[in-house]
Amino acid sequence: MARLVLKFGGTSVANVERIRNVARHVAREVKAGHQVAVVVSAMSGVTNQLVAYVQDAAKTGEAKGGLFDQMEYDAVVASGEQVTSGLLAITLQSMGLPARSFQGWQIPLETDDAHGAARIMDIDGAKLIEVMAAGEVAVIAGFQGIGPTGRIATLGRGGSDTSAVAIAAAVSADRCDIYTDVDGVYTTDPRIVSKAQRLEKVAFEEMLEMASLGAKVLQVRSVELAMVKKVRTFVRSSFDDPDSVGVDAHGNPPGTLICDEDEIVETQVVTGIAYSKDEAQISLRRVADKPGVAARVFGPLAEANINVDMIVQNTSPDGSTTDITFTVPATDEARARAVLEAAQADIGPTVIESSADVVKVSVIGIGMRSHAGVASQAFTALAARGINIRAITTSEIKISVLIDAAYTELAVRALHTAYGLDKA
Amino acid sequence: MARLVLKFGGTSVANVERIRNVARHVAREVKAGHQVAVVVSAMSGVTNQLVAYVQDAAKTGEAKGGLFDQMEYDAVVASGEQVTSGLLAITLQSMGLPARSFQGWQIPLETDDAHGAARIMDIDGAKLIEVMAAGEVAVIAGFQGIGPTGRIATLGRGGSDTSAVAIAAAVSADRCDIYTDVDGVYTTDPRIVSKAQRLEKVAFEEMLEMASLGAKVLQVRSVELAMVKKVRTFVRSSFDDPDSVGVDAHGNPPGTLICDEDEIVETQVVTGIAYSKDEAQISLRRVADKPGVAARVFGPLAEANINVDMIVQNTSPDGSTTDITFTVPATDEARARAVLEAAQADIGPTVIESSADVVKVSVIGIGMRSHAGVASQAFTALAARGINIRAITTSEIKISVLIDAAYTELAVRALHTAYGLDKA
Repeated sequence: MARLVLKFGGTSVANVERIRNVARHVAREVKAGHQVAVVVSAMSGVTNQLVAYVQDAAKTGEAKGGLFDQMEYDAVVASGEQVTSGLLAITLQSMGLPARSFQGWQIPLETDDAHGAARIMDIDGAKLIEVMAAGEVAVIAGFQGIGPTGRIATLGRGGSDTSAVAIAAAVSADRCDIYTDVDGVYTTDPRIVSKAQRLEKVAFEEMLEMASLGAKVLQVRSVELAMVKKVRTFVRSSFDDPDSVGVDAHGNPPGTLICDEDEIVETQVVTGIAYSKDEAQISLRRVADKPGVAARVFGPLAEANINVDMIVQNTSPDGSTTDITFTVPATDEARARAVLEAAQADIGPTVIESSADVVKVSVIGIGMRSHAGVASQAFTALAARGINIRAITTSEIKISVLIDAAYTELAVRALHTAYGLDKA
Repeated sequence: MARLVLKFGGTSVANVERIRNVARHVAREVKAGHQVAVVVSAMSGVTNQLVAYVQDAAKTGEAKGGLFDQMEYDAVVASGEQVTSGLLAITLQSMGLPARSFQGWQIPLETDDAHGAARIMDIDGAKLIEVMAAGEVAVIAGFQGIGPTGRIATLGRGGSDTSAVAIAAAVSADRCDIYTDVDGVYTTDPRIVSKAQRLEKVAFEEMLEMASLGAKVLQVRSVELAMVKKVRTFVRSSFDDPDSVGVDAHGNPPGTLICDEDEIVETQVVTGIAYSKDEAQISLRRVADKPGVAARVFGPLAEANINVDMIVQNTSPDGSTTDITFTVPATDEARARAVLEAAQADIGPTVIESSADVVKVSVIGIGMRSHAGVASQAFTALAARGINIRAITTSEIKISVLIDAAYTELAVRALHTAYGLDKA
């Protein structure tokens, strides 16, 4: 007997027929003797419709210039999850499984006051544990909680993953199963590399890097939370036939377990290759090479809340000037240029160049910590294909290179092969 | 300065454009210096869609035979009002009017545990009064409250009218304005009598009789509540142009005020003519005329929860048997016959006849209390048209006759004319 939290996204509950499929997954776990809580999103399309209503309503007068009250936005959009939680409870009951729905305020799942993108502050797991211990399935409306003033709060897009992991922590669940439209986490994007393989296990730290770099399987915040709270999180497909899911040699269904690295017996040096096109490169050419110049460049950017990622500084041949290159989120490119132009009197003479036509490709693996030469393998593989590296950053478990966007697929495939990740 | 509760139904909030129209009605009252709370229904069509989802979900397994948990039903359907309350708050804010939404549980509006058709037990008006006194519009999700176990409860179809009246009582409102798709209460159904007139005022007791008899303007429960709590209730059209509503000689917009009879200066003897086709007539022919027979007929019907309305008993010419005629709701006709057939051994030999092809026509007016001869006027008018009366009941303010359904329109028109209600 285990205590499980199951999470189903919008496409998995898109209509009553799909909700029945979800109920069959739940029934299988209940019949296996587990205590089960289920976290559901809104039916796919519903949240978008509700957001469109809000945006339309906000355009009525001139008073707020199309802006809207996030507390009212939350009241409107949280209704989507309310509907699916009730429908799934009814579906389960009609199959003979005791079940009841919980809205965020009924648990309660308490958030901060950042309505529209609130953070979870506290979850009282007592009522959920009581219901599950009594043999009922607790069906929880994801994405929502109650703010400090007693108003409905939502966690921002993709917040249901975070709800599920946080609830799993609050009820001390043995595992949090995230049912999604893919069957797990892959060594790289299978749309680019046909030889990509599903990972059986991946460490929290690795998953966090992969999620941050655009592997869209899980929301970054949910992975952070899973890592901090040590919630074993299993990613699997909601499209599997609930009653005849195949299992592997270890008795596990197809999917990827995100867990502590201690649980991963055979660690690979490199676990996956990720890429992100959401970067823009900015270069300051021929800046005076004297102490304090970096502070004069990056200080104003930090004040403007612009995240700077990769930084490279090269000395020019004449020794008196230097080139500074760094990346910012692509959405901040224009704003970053404006900030730098405003600060130019302070920085001194320079030519500001920028381009969003770049990609950050990353090699990720906790095994790197204990292996030397991992980075040079990447440089060799890229050089062999004539791919120029514009910038490099490394962390304990990641090597990232910035290259021309045109080489994305070529670079990812080359690295995937170089680190022995190709499917046999 | 007055404190007003405004209520808008589903067709009045059917889409964002209609919600804007509602907001303009609200704005007009706020600009006139009033404190305003607004009660809204779900967008028209939404509740039906949600109910259909519930019914579909309940058909998943065999466990509950298509029945569903009313608490989960409530969680699902209450979401419709949640959406419109948030959207109206956003619309008002964008017009520069401070506003905030309230769900039933946030007020709280407490109900009993009859989920799906709950009754209001208590409303704490403090928070609403505080918000209104601070110059904010309180936008309240109608139709919903919180039950004794902390679950969402709904008040049953049409419950938003009841929400509005109950909230008006809780905040000691000067008036409850019900915006609907008609511009008031008429002397009779204008679809039958083209000379029907809109009533400027109608007494609570009269409105209660008219609502019970099928004038669909207001839900019966809301009229009962208005009468008990003395909530002055004004019925008006939501389709009026909010910014140029005409007013009458007394400065009132078009509509009907439902109020205490003390407030009605010039009382008519008869205020209106109502009719109801929801009746079925049952006759027991040649029952033995001896003590206790009535109890043996009506006892089993009462036990079966069948409401008996009009009762007529005639002695047969031979004096040893009697005919008993009475009416039951048309939906209970078959059930009533079955109950009587089962009780026939007890009742004794009789022939049971029934017909749903009847109509109850009622003459209503508080002025009857102080006027004699009102009933004979009705009998004369019907006799003059050759309409046979099958049964009669009277109360202090109402005379009802049961006639063949074929004569409905003729009878209603004849009575409307006889009591001087025709428009000049």
